[in-house]
Amino acid sequence: MPARDAQTRTLDERLRAIEDRLEILNLIAGHPPSADTGADFYAARVYAEDGVFDRGEHLSGGHGNAEIAAMLQTPGHQAAIHGGLAHFAGLPHIAIDGDDAVVTSYLMILTPQPSGEAIEVPNHGASRGFRIHRVGANRWELTRTADGWKIKRRTLRPLDGSDPARALLRRALEPYRKSS
Amino acid sequence: MPARDAQTRTLDERLRAIEDRLEILNLIAGHPPSADTGADFYAARVYAEDGVFDRGEHLSGGHGNAEIAAMLQTPGHQAAIHGGLAHFAGLPHIAIDGDDAVVTSYLMILTPQPSGEAIEVPNHGASRGFRIHRVGANRWELTRTADGWKIKRRTLRPLDGSDPARALLRRALEPYRKSS
Amino acid sequence: MPARDAQTRTLDERLRAIEDRLEILNLIAGHPPSADTGADFYAARVYAEDGVFDRGEHLSGGHGNAEIAAMLQTPGHQAAIHGGLAHFAGLPHIAIDGDDAVVTSYLMILTPQPSGEAIEVPNHGASRGFRIHRVGANRWELTRTADGWKIKRRTLRPLDGSDPARALLRRALEPYRKSS
Repeated sequence: MPARDAQTRTLDERLRAIEDRLEILNLIAGHPPSADTGADFYAARVYAEDGVFDRGEHLSGGHGNAEIAAMLQTPGHQAAIHGGLAHFAGLPHIAIDGDDAVVTSYLMILTPQPSGEAIEVPNHGASRGFRIHRVGANRWELTRTADGWKIKRRTLRPLDGSDPARALLRRALEPYRKSS
Repeated sequence: MPARDAQTRTLDERLRAIEDRLEILNLIAGHPPSADTGADFYAARVYAEDGVFDRGEHLSGGHGNAEIAAMLQTPGHQAAIHGGLAHFAGLPHIAIDGDDAVVTSYLMILTPQPSGEAIEVPNHGASRGFRIHRVGANRWELTRTADGWKIKRRTLRPLDGSDPARALLRRALEPYRKSS
Repeated sequence: MPARDAQTRTLDERLRAIEDRLEILNLIAGHPPSADTGADFYAARVYAEDGVFDRGEHLSGGHGNAEIAAMLQTPGHQAAIHGGLAHFAGLPHIAIDGDDAVVTSYLMILTPQPSGEAIEVPNHGASRGFRIHRVGANRWELTRTADGWKIKRRTLRPLDGSDPARALLRRALEPYRKSS
């Protein structure tokens, strides 16, 4: 939304809003490295104690930062990591309202092609390439704490033509529907 | 470009430049959710009334925010959405010059693999995966209005080895050619 | 990390930190256009004179901004560009410490599918699609100069299940391990 109220906010309030945004960008940017290395301490830190990771009906999620962190150390997740796992984050949309924020972002999960012929690209080596295993829409609901912004709830839905991801994405755009 | 003129600008001018940048990041980040859900009201809002969406010679574009918004509600676009459509945005380069701005960004259009075997990734379910239908280079020419930044012209060209996308990308880098 | 020291920094210091971050975002966002068009002048400008581009043991890198820039004009790189080459940048994590900064980012290298059937997506034309040739983790070590932020060292490692990329990603998260 346009920052039409720039005139009525103090310099400090404006700086604070900007710093919030940049801190949140970094929080989201830290997610792929943590997922792809199994950095449980990162998940433990950025999720609220009672934070929730909701992966939809087909994948098991977590309740509480300790459980969500522990997911990264399961044999299944470790096997995925060692098979070659890359979480690739798109440009997030961020809306901050006081001590709450909502981030809406796209995510790809990439893995090496398990078979097939290697292809040579000049100056870029030979590779069998990578496949896109999943494409997901994320809604991250954040809250400000004395220890920085924390994730209260992350909702992830597959962007495969089914409705839940679209419903999630629509929520990010609702504020733009209002008349200015 | 380095902000070497920090000394000569007021705090308010510096804050304004930063807020412009963050508003533009969000405007671009809102594009994939709007395209993938058919949110015509978003397109109507972020394009200028006489804004143009130029998709090159092989795809039909739009003139005026009403027409560009209506593209999202055509049967063709709705069919693409229900087949599984994900616009995935890379990190944009942003150059602001007073009341004008140019954003140069990469975009992928992803769709589910229409056939093939599902592959299981531990802890990440089974999926036939997704294909990259198109990779495009975008140039977004924006203008500041009383109702926030608006798109005057969006130019999209396929990054398939043909020249127009490279010409578009080169324009983003021209300012770096000048001696400092 | 949370900016808990907001109270003890001056407005100018806070603005400077924000401007640094935005300048660095743009520097990283300029990389794909420069790589995909062979813009040697951009590489020459953003790398330090003694900057290093370390591509690991299987691909040759460069020492010094002149050599790194020249890589973009080699027949091999030019052939890759004309075959259709897209560097696609994910959301970077940025940590600034005074006059030094570390950026950790994901990168895909995309090329057109060399064969196969074109698939039609309604309203989005027909295409054989693109393949992901490589997925890499980047660590960019930057330094502040009178001419803006410059790259001292860029380290790129393939995210293919081998350990070096994970080691690189882990380094970005180390600061979050400390107790707050």
